[in-house]
Amino acid sequence: MHSTIREIRKTPEGIIRAQRAFEEFIANHDFRLPREIVYTGCGSSHFLAKPLAMATTRLGGRGFSAPCSELLYSREWYPIGNPELLVAISRSGETTEAVKALEALDVPRFALTAYESALSRKADYALIVPAHEESVVMTHSFPAFYFAYLQLLLSSFGKETHNAELVSSLTGEVLESEDYIRELVEGFDFRNVIFLGSGILYPVALEAMLKMKEMALFWSEAYPTFEVRHGFKSIADEGTLVVLLVDEPFNWHEKLTREFQGQKARVLTVGRRDTGADYFMEVPEVDKLVSPALYLPVVQLLAYYKAVSRGLNPDNPRFLSKVVKW
Amino acid sequence: MHSTIREIRKTPEGIIRAQRAFEEFIANHDFRLPREIVYTGCGSSHFLAKPLAMATTRLGGRGFSAPCSELLYSREWYPIGNPELLVAISRSGETTEAVKALEALDVPRFALTAYESALSRKADYALIVPAHEESVVMTHSFPAFYFAYLQLLLSSFGKETHNAELVSSLTGEVLESEDYIRELVEGFDFRNVIFLGSGILYPVALEAMLKMKEMALFWSEAYPTFEVRHGFKSIADEGTLVVLLVDEPFNWHEKLTREFQGQKARVLTVGRRDTGADYFMEVPEVDKLVSPALYLPVVQLLAYYKAVSRGLNPDNPRFLSKVVKW
Repeated sequence: MHSTIREIRKTPEGIIRAQRAFEEFIANHDFRLPREIVYTGCGSSHFLAKPLAMATTRLGGRGFSAPCSELLYSREWYPIGNPELLVAISRSGETTEAVKALEALDVPRFALTAYESALSRKADYALIVPAHEESVVMTHSFPAFYFAYLQLLLSSFGKETHNAELVSSLTGEVLESEDYIRELVEGFDFRNVIFLGSGILYPVALEAMLKMKEMALFWSEAYPTFEVRHGFKSIADEGTLVVLLVDEPFNWHEKLTREFQGQKARVLTVGRRDTGADYFMEVPEVDKLVSPALYLPVVQLLAYYKAVSRGLNPDNPRFLSKVVKW
Repeated sequence: MHSTIREIRKTPEGIIRAQRAFEEFIANHDFRLPREIVYTGCGSSHFLAKPLAMATTRLGGRGFSAPCSELLYSREWYPIGNPELLVAISRSGETTEAVKALEALDVPRFALTAYESALSRKADYALIVPAHEESVVMTHSFPAFYFAYLQLLLSSFGKETHNAELVSSLTGEVLESEDYIRELVEGFDFRNVIFLGSGILYPVALEAMLKMKEMALFWSEAYPTFEVRHGFKSIADEGTLVVLLVDEPFNWHEKLTREFQGQKARVLTVGRRDTGADYFMEVPEVDKLVSPALYLPVVQLLAYYKAVSRGLNPDNPRFLSKVVKW
């Protein structure tokens, strides 16, 4: 069995581990996250920086995210403002650009990582979530990191934290769709895939797009849901799977679904209610802030089974290494 | 001859027209752009909102951009803050989402468009740049809109404006590369293309990616330059063209070029200095704020000739219309 699928199946366990990491952190630090925070990371960690920034904003602060290399070499173009904290994310804590980026701004530094590492040692504070993975690509550690930090954000902002047991069991429910996803992939040999999500589900779409490339070396795209009609949709035809991530669909989602079907593409709606799609996968109702943790395993499974169906080994993606160094 | 190639060749003329629109605007309005501005648009107009936001930030203000649909339906996730102006961009001025988005925030409204239109009538101020296009896809109007608004930004912020004659003639110089690009496309039948740019050249990469999809129905991607090493590069092989847009390359750009060549991909560097690439196209030195106007025609030509080489008609892209309505 591939280690990648084992890692994906560890999502519920990762949430519990994340909760423990959060509890340890607050037990050992008299520290609260401030309101104005800049987040940075590379690749998947950048797509994790995005929902963390969004959660910060949603909770009344101001969160901004940028990839490490842009923060290092082009930051004069981004509305960074005067943040009170810089949060750098790296699974290994050894990514060259993340370690360098932690020094990009002259503000307190926070590391979000799975290990005691160069990143954690350089930071003023480190939230270490030991969601260790054998696989090259980041899978269950993404929702684990997200959930641990979200809990810290909620408690810092004086809000109630989430019930980790419950969230963990909900991710377990979502993982029960594994067979449905495997069968979808085996039954439809799509040539490209477009992931769509709005608000906090847009970064989930981006991460899905990246997983598909990493594991399946595959043509994948991601857009804020309705943006796709503005030119991008020209590439969708009978060889296309459109994955619509939507918590609360309204009539535009149904129209969009029909529009893609009119181009002969097939639509998989992932969410609380079907939009008239070719495939539908229900995700349990949950606070929107938690939703990335529930939608992520679905898209990871899709990428995994696409890789397998293409005869590739998702554990060892071509040209990639576990830690990116310069 | 396709109208699309005629439109691209009108870039120098568009800059002159833009200058006139800017001059008319300031002659008729006692209005200065404020410091905190939110920009919005759909598709190409969103990729135009991005460099305008970046220019605003670079000049000492705070510019933020979001696609219209995100501003309409998911704005609670974005760090919008308390802007002093909302700028909505739409070539036709009739795009449903752009017209709706202009009401998304309770602040003064500004329209950037080519016509007296629903958008311009709804706005408190309208900068109308009559860079009219027959083609469905947006080509020379993009640099024209960008340049007209940049001039207004510079004059509003008390900075020297650019010499439009000079910028116009520089875009003419860039267009002389048309044969080089046509030959490149004819000589290398690439299967996918990755556009890379940092800072203000990142939105140019995004727009290039969209042009390639619209005109050539083609697998195209865009990333902030060094982000590509974090997983995305797995899809690059002997069928890949990497287009590196870089004003001032340093050793990481050379390393990146070699890394892609090691994966058997070919690299086209567009900028001031070669990075050891397979193809090189020089772009004249210019103030960084103006650079989108010079880099855009190059990538538009690339998309145009790719469409032609695939036997497609870039004037009538599949599934697309000139104005997107709901």
